Amino acid sequence: MKNSAILLITCPDRKGEVATIADFIYRHNGNILHADEHGDEESGLFLMRVEFDPKEFDIDLGNFAKHFSPIADTFGMTWRLAQSSHRQRLIIFVSKYDHCLVDLLYRHKSGELACEIPLIISNHPDNREIADFYGVPYVVVSAIKDNKSEAESRIHGLIQQHQPDFMVLARYMQILSNEFVNRYPQRIINIHHSFLPAFVGARPYHQAFERGVKLIGATSHYVTEVLDDGPIIEQDVVRVSHRDTVEDLIRKGRDLEKVVLSRAVRAHVENRVLVYGNKTVVF
Amino acid sequence: MKNSAILLITCPDRKGEVATIADFIYRHNGNILHADEHGDEESGLFLMRVEFDPKEFDIDLGNFAKHFSPIADTFGMTWRLAQSSHRQRLIIFVSKYDHCLVDLLYRHKSGELACEIPLIISNHPDNREIADFYGVPYVVVSAIKDNKSEAESRIHGLIQQHQPDFMVLARYMQILSNEFVNRYPQRIINIHHSFLPAFVGARPYHQAFERGVKLIGATSHYVTEVLDDGPIIEQDVVRVSHRDTVEDLIRKGRDLEKVVLSRAVRAHVENRVLVYGNKTVVF
Amino acid sequence: MKNSAILLITCPDRKGEVATIADFIYRHNGNILHADEHGDEESGLFLMRVEFDPKEFDIDLGNFAKHFSPIADTFGMTWRLAQSSHRQRLIIFVSKYDHCLVDLLYRHKSGELACEIPLIISNHPDNREIADFYGVPYVVVSAIKDNKSEAESRIHGLIQQHQPDFMVLARYMQILSNEFVNRYPQRIINIHHSFLPAFVGARPYHQAFERGVKLIGATSHYVTEVLDDGPIIEQDVVRVSHRDTVEDLIRKGRDLEKVVLSRAVRAHVENRVLVYGNKTVVF
Amino acid sequence: MKNSAILLITCPDRKGEVATIADFIYRHNGNILHADEHGDEESGLFLMRVEFDPKEFDIDLGNFAKHFSPIADTFGMTWRLAQSSHRQRLIIFVSKYDHCLVDLLYRHKSGELACEIPLIISNHPDNREIADFYGVPYVVVSAIKDNKSEAESRIHGLIQQHQPDFMVLARYMQILSNEFVNRYPQRIINIHHSFLPAFVGARPYHQAFERGVKLIGATSHYVTEVLDDGPIIEQDVVRVSHRDTVEDLIRKGRDLEKVVLSRAVRAHVENRVLVYGNKTVVF
Repeated sequence: MKNSAILLITCPDRKGEVATIADFIYRHNGNILHADEHGDEESGLFLMRVEFDPKEFDIDLGNFAKHFSPIADTFGMTWRLAQSSHRQRLIIFVSKYDHCLVDLLYRHKSGELACEIPLIISNHPDNREIADFYGVPYVVVSAIKDNKSEAESRIHGLIQQHQPDFMVLARYMQILSNEFVNRYPQRIINIHHSFLPAFVGARPYHQAFERGVKLIGATSHYVTEVLDDGPIIEQDVVRVSHRDTVEDLIRKGRDLEKVVLSRAVRAHVENRVLVYGNKTVVF
Repeated sequence: MKNSAILLITCPDRKGEVATIADFIYRHNGNILHADEHGDEESGLFLMRVEFDPKEFDIDLGNFAKHFSPIADTFGMTWRLAQSSHRQRLIIFVSKYDHCLVDLLYRHKSGELACEIPLIISNHPDNREIADFYGVPYVVVSAIKDNKSEAESRIHGLIQQHQPDFMVLARYMQILSNEFVNRYPQRIINIHHSFLPAFVGARPYHQAFERGVKLIGATSHYVTEVLDDGPIIEQDVVRVSHRDTVEDLIRKGRDLEKVVLSRAVRAHVENRVLVYGNKTVVF
Repeated sequence: MKNSAILLITCPDRKGEVATIADFIYRHNGNILHADEHGDEESGLFLMRVEFDPKEFDIDLGNFAKHFSPIADTFGMTWRLAQSSHRQRLIIFVSKYDHCLVDLLYRHKSGELACEIPLIISNHPDNREIADFYGVPYVVVSAIKDNKSEAESRIHGLIQQHQPDFMVLARYMQILSNEFVNRYPQRIINIHHSFLPAFVGARPYHQAFERGVKLIGATSHYVTEVLDDGPIIEQDVVRVSHRDTVEDLIRKGRDLEKVVLSRAVRAHVENRVLVYGNKTVVF
Repeated sequence: MKNSAILLITCPDRKGEVATIADFIYRHNGNILHADEHGDEESGLFLMRVEFDPKEFDIDLGNFAKHFSPIADTFGMTWRLAQSSHRQRLIIFVSKYDHCLVDLLYRHKSGELACEIPLIISNHPDNREIADFYGVPYVVVSAIKDNKSEAESRIHGLIQQHQPDFMVLARYMQILSNEFVNRYPQRIINIHHSFLPAFVGARPYHQAFERGVKLIGATSHYVTEVLDDGPIIEQDVVRVSHRDTVEDLIRKGRDLEKVVLSRAVRAHVENRVLVYGNKTVVF
């Protein structure tokens, strides 16, 4: 797969942005492969993702900032440049339920997720075997009530050591401290097993069963301080009926969770997600 | 369309119910056309819908209760008998938004909804023209803040006069009093423009837009005292993205609302809905 | 609603197109509102839709061609400029089934379809009443077997008179001659009541029932010489089961047909559809 | 999980069947847990699935036939009795693509598929590792062009040895001979990667891409002599757009194939599928 450069931009909406950016890339001999824009009327923001072929680009991408800064300053842009050749590093967090973990590891191996997985962190030893099968190191960090901050500082150590670009909570049943969450904004993806904002918190399938809904859902979102309230990346639902017990909801929900989480992870890996306010654009 | 008899039963779950009911119908020379059962483990309830051809049935359906009572008593059944030849009477309530009203009237005319519509009640005169086109009387009952109980007593009068079997709030933007609602349990169907229990109350599309969800929904339910909390009959969703404005959500939502409400109304008209606790079985 | 200008472009894919187009608009003081691009690897084609605010644009849009031609020639572009203020003229063709017609007329009236409907042509008088309700002239052109070319020449006359931008076959059960179809390439939209290419031709719901499929579909496409083979604009499906009779498929299918056709018509009206080969890009 | 007995019946539709069957079970002290019926008007057939608790049933299930035969003869029933405690034996066939295999093995291990998997047969050695991980024997039977009948007779030998109740072609890219297929009617389940009957035969995703469809599908069906024409058990679709390459269709399709195949296998394992003509009832 050939390398492509991905420029992600957020700035106040005003005339000339597309032309200026496209011209900059063209002038330096880059070939635009895809471009997506979104103007958000409410916030007055302009968001853009441009993917271009850097093969004949006459600026070394290491010096991109120097050349692009004047434009960025003029338009008040927040921006970053990614390269598809850089495989992001992902640490997966998991507890006992293994369906999302197994799914991610399989997709990774099959080439669907163009990232590295240097580590799995769990508060239980149960999923070591599948981690071994896929050759991913698996570290158990027990989360006993009284040592929460101790556990988190051990996790910090592992993060320091493995330098992930982002983390995925693949049914990780520990609530992370605000301090932890705030260190990694837009870098922790969670899967919640309901159609948020319905059924926030614990046991959403039981809540759904109690309420008698006719569809159940799953939501993948970035983690923020407020529980189950971060920017939503992807959601989907599946039909249920009175014939479905709570166990059936849980089983049907597993398929949803896997698909929804993997779509979100893939979008993140491909640098397709931009956050603005408490929302996402997924280009 | 030939007549069929529909027996709807709820009772504590115990051995022999299906056999006893099926045998009763068979013994009296009825031919079972469809039978659906549901045993709800949690509540220990058994629910059943049996549709049979009464043509050669040797009991006059007017005397059904007398013959069936011994069985019903033995099993502690709550039951009712409906006939497809009895066209239920429906009063539609509507405010200004006309999409659900127009949809119901068209489906009714085209034969999809086997009921009568003797009356439309509205708090605005706006939709009189389409009511006239379909030949349905249209009465305006203004709902001024200070005369709420007066308005409701006028509505009661219309109900007395027209004797509806059930009522549909087809985007009726007045909150009915508890007293009103409690008079007609499981006989008032509402359409709420969100995937309940998410976005209860006013302006759900605006709430959905604010939250940045990736799907929007609609929910049809029986009205109870608690706002947007009654037993859900039908729900569905449609995908949205960052490109959709609130206006787009409203437009896409209209198609959902129409379909979800009409499915619920049709299920009710065909005597397919049984309520238990705060849930429904839709056979 | 403010006016916007929409530039639609198809050309061989090469470097600098986006920059050149964006620069042209910017240089002449237009503000890009939305831009969508697609590079089709297989055909080597580049397709683009740019919507810009022409309020301060310093070229009179009537002279756009003169100024844009040099660019178009350089890149070998096929292009056209549309304006949202120009309401396209649509002639609807219908036979007896009225659900798509009723749906289109309602959506038109409610403002969802920003076009004019100067005429409905039918081979039956049945739907005159609803046309009258919505104030749209309704002309019956009977299609007797022996006078097909005569009927078509009458239709041509009506087209000459009413100058439609495009036509919609809203369940029009006459097969149009190749000669007719070829006069209006990409200007006739049909709704076929199956998930094409499954169940081409007559009675697709009966075919679907026979085959025992678990989903039924509807397809909206541009009409070409080959029956049910033109470029697909939109498709959707709905779940069915063994409990559904052919009549149920027809009923469920009606809801699909309405939604699929109206989405296609809306995309066409908003100048979002580009045809390449036998496919469409719907931006 | 407690044992349940499942009685599956097909017979000409006539009065008294439900009563007679329910009464038989009740009389012998069985408790009906679920009952589903379907009367197919077209063929005049009645199909039924009754699940009952055999704990206090006063007939030994080994002698069920002797006691039930008089009823079966009277009504001309084709029937069989299954028990949930009997775990069906499944042989999986696979070629190189592993996604369906991996999915089935994971679901099996997690308890979703209540069957035994004594053997995997493949024409390639590639998937041995995952089979080993899940502890399922894996036998390679190469299918060279000239030795097709030889390969099939080897497969027959393996079938004789392992006595499967049914087989699943989990992306097995060999066409089985009619002779082979006819030996196992309604016992071989295939997954075809299109929404049948669209795109029969080879490379359906390429066909779908060429045709420019807006949805792609997958179909699980029983294998019959005619390619991709057997009774459909389950189908589903997913939306695609012009942005999706053939590779994207293949990737999106994998998720569909896994879900559709596993639903079909689960329905088969739970004795929920009845075939009539070239169709299925899935209760």
